[in-house]
This record gives sequence, C-alpha cells and structure tokens, in this order.
Amino acid sequence: MKKINIGLIGLGTIGSGVLKILSQKRKSFKKKYDVDFNMAKICDKNPKLRSKLNISPRIFTTKYQDIVNSKDIDVVIELIGGINPAKDIILRSLESGKSVITANKALLAQDLSSMLAVAHKNKSQLRFEASVCGGIPIIKSLTEGLVADRIESVVGIINGTSNYILSEMAEQDCSFFEALSEAKKRGFAERNPSLDIKGFDSAHKLSILAFLAFGKYILQKDIYVKGIEEISPLDIKYAKELGLVIKLLAIAKKSDGDILEVRVHPTLISEEHPLASVNGIFNAVYIKGELVGDLLFFGQGAGQLPTASAVISDLIDIASQKRPIDFSQKGLIKKIKRMDDIRSKYYIRFMVIDKPGVLAKISGILAKRKISIASVTQKERSRAKVVPVIMLTHDVREKDIRLALEAIDKLAMVKKNTVVIHREEL
Amino acid sequence: MKKINIGLIGLGTIGSGVLKILSQKRKSFKKKYDVDFNMAKICDKNPKLRSKLNISPRIFTTKYQDIVNSKDIDVVIELIGGINPAKDIILRSLESGKSVITANKALLAQDLSSMLAVAHKNKSQLRFEASVCGGIPIIKSLTEGLVADRIESVVGIINGTSNYILSEMAEQDCSFFEALSEAKKRGFAERNPSLDIKGFDSAHKLSILAFLAFGKYILQKDIYVKGIEEISPLDIKYAKELGLVIKLLAIAKKSDGDILEVRVHPTLISEEHPLASVNGIFNAVYIKGELVGDLLFFGQGAGQLPTASAVISDLIDIASQKRPIDFSQKGLIKKIKRMDDIRSKYYIRFMVIDKPGVLAKISGILAKRKISIASVTQKERSRAKVVPVIMLTHDVREKDIRLALEAIDKLAMVKKNTVVIHREEL
Repeated sequence: MKKINIGLIGLGTIGSGVLKILSQKRKSFKKKYDVDFNMAKICDKNPKLRSKLNISPRIFTTKYQDIVNSKDIDVVIELIGGINPAKDIILRSLESGKSVITANKALLAQDLSSMLAVAHKNKSQLRFEASVCGGIPIIKSLTEGLVADRIESVVGIINGTSNYILSEMAEQDCSFFEALSEAKKRGFAERNPSLDIKGFDSAHKLSILAFLAFGKYILQKDIYVKGIEEISPLDIKYAKELGLVIKLLAIAKKSDGDILEVRVHPTLISEEHPLASVNGIFNAVYIKGELVGDLLFFGQGAGQLPTASAVISDLIDIASQKRPIDFSQKGLIKKIKRMDDIRSKYYIRFMVIDKPGVLAKISGILAKRKISIASVTQKERSRAKVVPVIMLTHDVREKDIRLALEAIDKLAMVKKNTVVIHREEL
Repeated sequence: MKKINIGLIGLGTIGSGVLKILSQKRKSFKKKYDVDFNMAKICDKNPKLRSKLNISPRIFTTKYQDIVNSKDIDVVIELIGGINPAKDIILRSLESGKSVITANKALLAQDLSSMLAVAHKNKSQLRFEASVCGGIPIIKSLTEGLVADRIESVVGIINGTSNYILSEMAEQDCSFFEALSEAKKRGFAERNPSLDIKGFDSAHKLSILAFLAFGKYILQKDIYVKGIEEISPLDIKYAKELGLVIKLLAIAKKSDGDILEVRVHPTLISEEHPLASVNGIFNAVYIKGELVGDLLFFGQGAGQLPTASAVISDLIDIASQKRPIDFSQKGLIKKIKRMDDIRSKYYIRFMVIDKPGVLAKISGILAKRKISIASVTQKERSRAKVVPVIMLTHDVREKDIRLALEAIDKLAMVKKNTVVIHREEL
C-alpha cells in the first residue's frame, strides 16, 4: 500500500476540518484507494491547539520550516491564508518536489501563474479546488470536464457573504447595514467584512477561474471591482417590479474575439435566470461553452466541511497520480478590455424635482451620448417633490454612461447622486 | 509525443460530432496535452456515410471486428447504442486491453458492474461520462470531486424529453399529447418516445448514478418506474396554486441507514427549490453529501456537441493516464427498499359527486389507514356536479395510500380514477 506523508499547516476552521475528516476516514480511504494518508506533521503558530485538538507532541510543531524542510513529507496542505509566510511555504515546498494543496485565493490571485510554473519545473503538483466555491468541484470541472471545450463566459456568485446580504435585503426589505449586522450575528460575515462586501474576495476567485477558463493570467488591478455597499432597498424593490434581481456577479467573458472582460459588480439579471434563485450563502458558477452550451454549478461556497472535502479530493487526486492542474488552456485572449470600453445595459435611478421639462433635459443629454433608452418609469410623487425616475438602457458604452451622468448630476433639478447599476442578459 | 489510436464505432449524431471535434481540434490537443489523437479506424454499418462524411476508404469499415480485433487500436469509442452488438464490442475490446468510451446507458444500466470488473481485470479503462446528462460533468464530479464524501441522496431531472413536455404543459396550459407533438416537431422527442416518457431512460441513468454514488449495483427491475403520460394540465394547475411544480424525478436516497430507495416518478416539489426552475430540455442533478451539503449541476443533458464533448473529456482522461472510474464507493447499502414500504408525501385528486358526507366518507377510509392530511381544497362546483377535491398528505407509507385509494375508488360517490402524485421535500 502506498503511504502519503502529509504536512498540514494551519489549524483554523478548514485545517481542523481536514484533520478531523482524515482521521475519521483514514481506514476507509485505505480500503477504497489503497493508500494510507499519514498525518506526519501538523503546524500551527498557536501551541495551545495541540492539546485542544488532541494532537500527539511527536507530530506537532509551531515552525512551518519543520514541514517545508522535511524530507519525509510528500504533500503539504497550506491553510494559513494571507500572503506571508504562505507564499514562502508553497514555493519552498514545490521546489523541494513536494506537492501542495492550498485554499489561499488571495495568494493564488496574485501568484498562481508563477507558482504553477514552479510546480511544473519541479514535477510537483499544486492543487487548489478549495480556493473557489468550497465544495463545488468547479476547478476540476473547468480543467478536466470541460477540457475539450472553448469557454465563452464564466459568471459567478462567488461570495457567500455578499449574496447573503443581498438576499436578506430583498427578502426582509431591510437596509444594507441591517442585513450586514444580521450576517455577522449568524456567522456569515467576518468582523471586518470589507474584502467580501467590497468585491475583492470575488475578484480573487474570478482571476483564478478566468485563468483556468481562458489561459490568461489576470492582475488584480485589471479587474474592475465594485462592491454592494451602495445598493439600497429602494433599487432592489424597483428592480423587482421590472422582473429583475440584483446579484454581486463576477464576470469573465470573451468579447470581440481575443479580448476579455473581467469585472465584479452588482448586476441586475432577469428573475427567471437560474442565477437569480441562488440565495443566501449559496454560491453558483454559470459557464457558457462553445460545445456544452450552458452549465450551472450550485452549492455551498464556504463552510468547514464542504471546503475540507475539496482539500481531500485534491489529496486523493495527488495520491492517484493524476495529471496536475492543466494550466495550458491558452485561448486567443490577448488583452483585457478597459472598463470604459465595456458595453452593457444599465439601470439608472435619478432623483429629480417633479417639474415639467426635467425628463426632456435628461433625455437630451443621454441622446447626445447616443444612449438609447429601453424604458422609463416615473415613480409616485413624494411630498418633498423629489421623485425617482427609473430608466433601463439598451447596450451602451460604459464611458458614455459615465460622462452623461456627470453632466446630468450637475443639473439643478437633479437631486442627490444618480444610482447606476449594470444589467446583463446572460 | 504520445499517439493514441482511436477506433470509432457508430456515426450517428454523437459519433459524427466526436469525429468533427477531433478533426477540428487535433492540432490544439497536440499542443495542449502533448498527445496526438489519431482516428485510426471508423466503423458504421451504413457504407454510404463514408463518402458523406468525407472519410478516407483506408480507415473506414463496416465491420466492427476490424476495430475490436486490431492490435493497433488503443481506445474504442462505442456509440452505436442498444445491447447487441455493443456489449460484444465493449467486452472484447476491454479483454484485449483496449480502453473503451461509451454513452450507452441502456447497456451500462444492465452490465456496468460486470463490465467494470472486466476492465479492472484487464487493466483497461471503461469511461462513460457521456451516458448521463450529456455535457454536465456529473460522473467525474461523483467519482472524483466528491470522493471524500458520503452521499446521502441523488435526485435528478435526467430526461430532457419528459422535462420539455412537462414544462410545455405548465407554460402553455396544454395537454400531454399536444406537448408531446410539439416536442416531436422540435426534435426533442423521438418518433417512438416511450423509453423517455415512460421513465425508463431516466431509470437507466439513475442506476448508473446510484452505482457511483452508493456503490450498489441496481437491477432495473428493482427500480420503481412511472412515466408522465397520465399527468394532466388540471393537476399542474392545482399544484401551481399550492406553490408546487411537477417534475419527472429520478431519486436515489439512503433511508434507514443501509437501505436505498431508487425510484422514477412524477413528483411535486416546491416551486422555490432549485430543481423547480429547471425547464425545457435542460437536465439537473441535485446531490446531498454528508460533507458538501447541497450541490446542483445544471446543463444540457443531450445534443450532439455537449455529449461529444463529454466523450472527448473521457478520451483526454485516458490519454493522461488518470485512474480509471472508481467503482469502489462501497457504502453501507445492503438492500433496496420495496416500493410498498417507501414513505412519501402525496398529492391526491379525487373527483367526487358534490353531496354532503363525501368528505367524511373519504376521510374515514384514510384515517383507518393512518393517513394524515396536511390540507384539503374543494374546487369550484361544476355543472356536472362532479367536483375535484385536492388533498396533500403528510408522510405516509406507499402501501397504505394504495390500499386506501383502492377502497375509496369503489365508493359510488367517487367518479373516475383518483389521481395520486408523489410529493418530496428535498
């Protein structure tokens, strides 16, 4: 029987889940896969976890070097997160011929391409199924299941915190801050939730997905990112009246052949689209392929057991000597589209003084920028004489919208800043 | 560069799709995977296809033996369907050490277990991603992605024809026969659609999924199968009023620990469940795992290109020397539950003469069988004085429902046969 010596670094939620599952299932894995997963060394900087988790002192250490430098370890599981020392751990492990499993999406978003090259050079494997969408086998599906296909777009709801907040706002008709506080109470948002609600966590995962789908390594600075903090219950309500739902979408899609759009922002989609019914902390990834057509993967994007199960599926892949993650999906992608040049539909809410001529003035500015309007709804008069006007546009260049709204927001009859939300027909 | 010699048998829709993709992508596969997929021999019993598909006479044959007996072929792709001679082709190919890719669900449903054993014995591979749900990588996800998990249930909409018909009936408020005729017109139903609409195609696929998920080989005779022919627009309408949708579901789930339920039948589910919005020819598989929780895979379950792309992903897996399909997911499943012993919720529609005492009589018979009622709705009076009464039950044993309805249908005041449809809370 083959024996795989594992070095586990990081005993947080996921790490302790991996430890638990591996010790519970060691026997059944032996029987099923003819492989013995031996937990050779476990590292956490907090020495108290050793006794708390009932780990033998013989295999516990607080120094990750004990694992990285060991000649007996075959696979390193890095679950500490953050850039340093995770980067050092992964690179040195790969360089010494060890395979590495990680869920560290922030680091992968920054260095995936170079790390895969190091793995390749040293004939070791780098696997990271757990880095995107927890238990959903999306990395495997993209790199193996859809290997014969040419991907046209990948669109995901890939941040559970934001999706929970938006779902809660829609269902409870409450404000962003009320929903956020509920999310914190229920453990669905971290104390400092800014990575999640500002869209950066989605952007990290999107760069990983886009790299695998399109073979183009994308710098974080090239991803347009907008979070959900400015979404108001009012727009959720008006959108609903139009048959639309607001989701924080991460979008990577081919446009004009060899140019890629990559962006994360709140997006209005039809309430009939499968992504519209992905609610709460659930994640989903929607893929269009030239051959397979439309595919949707839906499941829990986070949580101890789903994510730990993804780590272990990587471990079994490595033990089965399967080929490493394929990172040669080189498409024709030459560059990333500038956000200004993106064409999209838009939802616009103006708050205007209810006087004759307002609409004519606004429409005039829009027309000058060749912005074509699909529908206009003026909402009920308010006592303050400031009323919302909702417009849906046809396909328009982002830059034109931006310039038009800058001009419109300067009009005396337009009160407050105008709200503008992307709309996609997926 | 590794060269893989392929023998393709069957030039129907899928076969010609595989031929097309492989010839278009041969170069790109060489570059990407360092493997040359060489179409060494192509067989179809219809010799006219040779010139029609522009195949060189040198590599064309009408005798499958030329492929099965060849010493130069590495992988046989069997796409003729049906039991004979497909079975002979697959077994003899595996026995001679060739790997086999097939989409033949009817044959797999009958012989998967023994065929995998033959493959194992001869160190060859049998792969069949294309046999269930076309382009959705469901076999790979079950056997690799969820390999660390213990599956609790697999519930699928896995027959596109039936799903199209039920969706059409719901959307157009038309009869089964109208919807079927529309499905035929649009190429979504075969001239003889009975395998699809009677549920047997779903049962074939279910036995494959259940085998992979639970490690229990299931004979077709042990699967309870009921088709959609008796579903009426009336029940679709009443169900909708109750927030329910009717789908043809294929269900395999653990019950009482080591007993498995396997059944295919029209089923009422909440309109809010992700499966409820899977419409038209789309397929979806909903999986509950001990670790991953709920997962949904959604996509095109049939069609030339999605299915051919699944065949080719199998081919690339074989070329990459990945481990064969894992068929050792041996759970604790000891036996299959008898349909009589299944517990389910039910929707029941009685057609009764609108007279006092009817409900008391019916309720009395139900109570005697300990059938507990969740709700009763009596519909509008009709001129014929026969009115529908809709009941939803709590969890009830199938046998009790059956016996109660036999008694009720004998009552003089009950007209026509009573309609009963399973209801699941997934």
